[in-house]
Amino acid sequence: MKTLWSQRYALRTQRMQSSIIRELLKLTEKPDLISFAGGLPAPEVFPIEQFKVATQRVLADAGWRSLQYSATEGFGKLREMIARHMGRYGIEVKSENILITSGSQQALDLIGRVFLNPGDRIVVERPTYLGALQSWNAYQAEYQGIPMDDDGMRIDALEMALRSGPKFVYALPNFQNPSGVTLCLSRRRQLVKMADEWGVPIVEDDPYGQLRFEGDHLPSLAVLDAESRDGKQYTGNVIYLSTFSKTLAPGIRLGWIVAPVEVISKLVQSKQGSDLHSSTFIQMVAYEVARGGFLDRHVKHIRSVYRVRRDAILAALRRHMPPGVRWTKPEGGLFIWVTVPEGIDTWELLHEAVEHNVAFVPGAAFYDDGSGKNTMRLNFSNATPQQIEEGIERLGQVLARVVASTPAAELGNLTHR
Amino acid sequence: MKTLWSQRYALRTQRMQSSIIRELLKLTEKPDLISFAGGLPAPEVFPIEQFKVATQRVLADAGWRSLQYSATEGFGKLREMIARHMGRYGIEVKSENILITSGSQQALDLIGRVFLNPGDRIVVERPTYLGALQSWNAYQAEYQGIPMDDDGMRIDALEMALRSGPKFVYALPNFQNPSGVTLCLSRRRQLVKMADEWGVPIVEDDPYGQLRFEGDHLPSLAVLDAESRDGKQYTGNVIYLSTFSKTLAPGIRLGWIVAPVEVISKLVQSKQGSDLHSSTFIQMVAYEVARGGFLDRHVKHIRSVYRVRRDAILAALRRHMPPGVRWTKPEGGLFIWVTVPEGIDTWELLHEAVEHNVAFVPGAAFYDDGSGKNTMRLNFSNATPQQIEEGIERLGQVLARVVASTPAAELGNLTHR
Repeated sequence: MKTLWSQRYALRTQRMQSSIIRELLKLTEKPDLISFAGGLPAPEVFPIEQFKVATQRVLADAGWRSLQYSATEGFGKLREMIARHMGRYGIEVKSENILITSGSQQALDLIGRVFLNPGDRIVVERPTYLGALQSWNAYQAEYQGIPMDDDGMRIDALEMALRSGPKFVYALPNFQNPSGVTLCLSRRRQLVKMADEWGVPIVEDDPYGQLRFEGDHLPSLAVLDAESRDGKQYTGNVIYLSTFSKTLAPGIRLGWIVAPVEVISKLVQSKQGSDLHSSTFIQMVAYEVARGGFLDRHVKHIRSVYRVRRDAILAALRRHMPPGVRWTKPEGGLFIWVTVPEGIDTWELLHEAVEHNVAFVPGAAFYDDGSGKNTMRLNFSNATPQQIEEGIERLGQVLARVVASTPAAELGNLTHR
Repeated sequence: MKTLWSQRYALRTQRMQSSIIRELLKLTEKPDLISFAGGLPAPEVFPIEQFKVATQRVLADAGWRSLQYSATEGFGKLREMIARHMGRYGIEVKSENILITSGSQQALDLIGRVFLNPGDRIVVERPTYLGALQSWNAYQAEYQGIPMDDDGMRIDALEMALRSGPKFVYALPNFQNPSGVTLCLSRRRQLVKMADEWGVPIVEDDPYGQLRFEGDHLPSLAVLDAESRDGKQYTGNVIYLSTFSKTLAPGIRLGWIVAPVEVISKLVQSKQGSDLHSSTFIQMVAYEVARGGFLDRHVKHIRSVYRVRRDAILAALRRHMPPGVRWTKPEGGLFIWVTVPEGIDTWELLHEAVEHNVAFVPGAAFYDDGSGKNTMRLNFSNATPQQIEEGIERLGQVLARVVASTPAAELGNLTHR
């Protein structure tokens, strides 16, 4: 249908590509398909019974208030709970430093809205979170990608990027989406120190930090920035993002931003124009589910379930992948990153894989510069260990056939990660 | 706290003024204050018991699905229900023409994101909905205001505005926020015809259309555009917005957009970058509450409650307002518009009113050009009839004193509305 709207799209919509993830989801609607493509939590861990109790309690105790308009900043008790939670992880903030968002995606969008002029440069990990690129493309941002290795962002490449005058650095230090890689402690310190030297602030995105299966918790960039000034008080140079999507449930769409009060004030104005506020009812329900220590106990449960699945996918990859394929060994989170021999394009591979009832996300989607054609992201949180074994076996067979049928001359050397 | 973020705000944030409504809410936290300021529905009509049943049913029948990520377009059954609902009001659309949004505010924002380049002009009613101005200011829009009278937008002023090449016309034809005025049928037809002649599409915002207390329902602009082409089929030249905020509850933050499929596709991409999707759980709950005819029955109940309050405020205004004050007589909705003698600034009046425990929104906030200083918006849905009588009496006394103490020379003639 041709309408009067057709010729009227804003220039920024030209950068909106049809989302790769959405295209993928269409591919993956086959009933027998085992998908490692989504970033979906395990449905088995959703605390359905707790939601039943919490919804009844909220409607009984705060009936009309839970259904009425409310403050853009978010539900007061939830903001206080999050401030306390941040304090336990070493970030000393007050509830006035917390803005409740409609998922972390909205946090990224509001940051773009408040800070980005067209052409502004953002330093990102390469690969980085696709959703951030999608959000910030709408503000006509440019990107300066920093290569990663098994210890995260390569600091040797950072100085040049900081020198170019970026608006901010965007980092996912824990079990990064998509790579599963964690930024090591010494690099965290270096990143914070160098960003400070160059006067560049940092956006720290931490949806998975609590989902560590093994090894020691590493301090967040926000904490290290405070420590570098001999304090525990939040300095404000690092905006910190997290979410309930991976600990309570993504279908409630609740995340939060930790930022200096002046930035919160701008973000609140932006959020007011975006959606007025996040659902009063769902905020009250999330508080009711999480409070009294439930969330901490529940996170331990999630860790134990995901650890088993992570072990299952690592074992299956060892069993079924042909030679020349490498993968990361994440200590937490939801994702593993696989690098296949150069010369194999994982977009093409995907179509073959879907025919054999297995799916993943081609890695190029996560690169600001469109490279990474021989990489893929595998999610291990959504499928059961049995499905993981079966799915990786299918993927290994597809990949082995493609490798075998590709002329050796086209298969390049392995890239360094 | 001075941080690295302070010098880094985007240019567009310079147009974000601290919201007038937010400032107001701070004034109105006094316990004995009677507020006509908010746009709040009556809490007494929220269907709390239905929400109790619906949340339990959703968690029992669709437990994990209601808590998982879901499609950006929205919950399928809810979209189908809305498409059928639109059909009953004469707009023949399919569910693929419907996008679920996080309240109507997000609908306005997504439209701005998809269509507005900096400097784009939008034809608006003068006064118009403040939240639309806030949303579109972020996209650096300009406005061309059309004066209104008791039959709505003055069509004699429309042609010049259409001639100036606006991106679209933004109209609230039913019980407009803030004025309470309804666009009469002949002007609806003229607006649709002239917009078509000039090739300018229309955004029709209709949050209150179902809340008519008396008189005949008037066809929406979307319907008239179809009829002008001898059809019932949705033409797509009018994007139509509505919401559950005034019929179910605002605290669930659910609205919708009716648009051509190609526009829905762009809006979906924008929404994906904004918040991925609206809460799966709350969409399923809203469907469960609304289905089976409940929503229609409930809307009748709301109408009867609001009609009593509308009658109460009209009676109180007649009793308590000093000479020289005029007001609109809305046939539905939530708002009445009051014009006081010229020379009285309602922002200054507000401070005095709050001291006497009554509040309203100064009308200038709703003017794209900052005029309307002697106007105010009164909400009649939130306070009980007793509170309305008491509050208007207080306001009348304050206003009488201010009129008496203002030199006659400063009190201008009454403006025409």
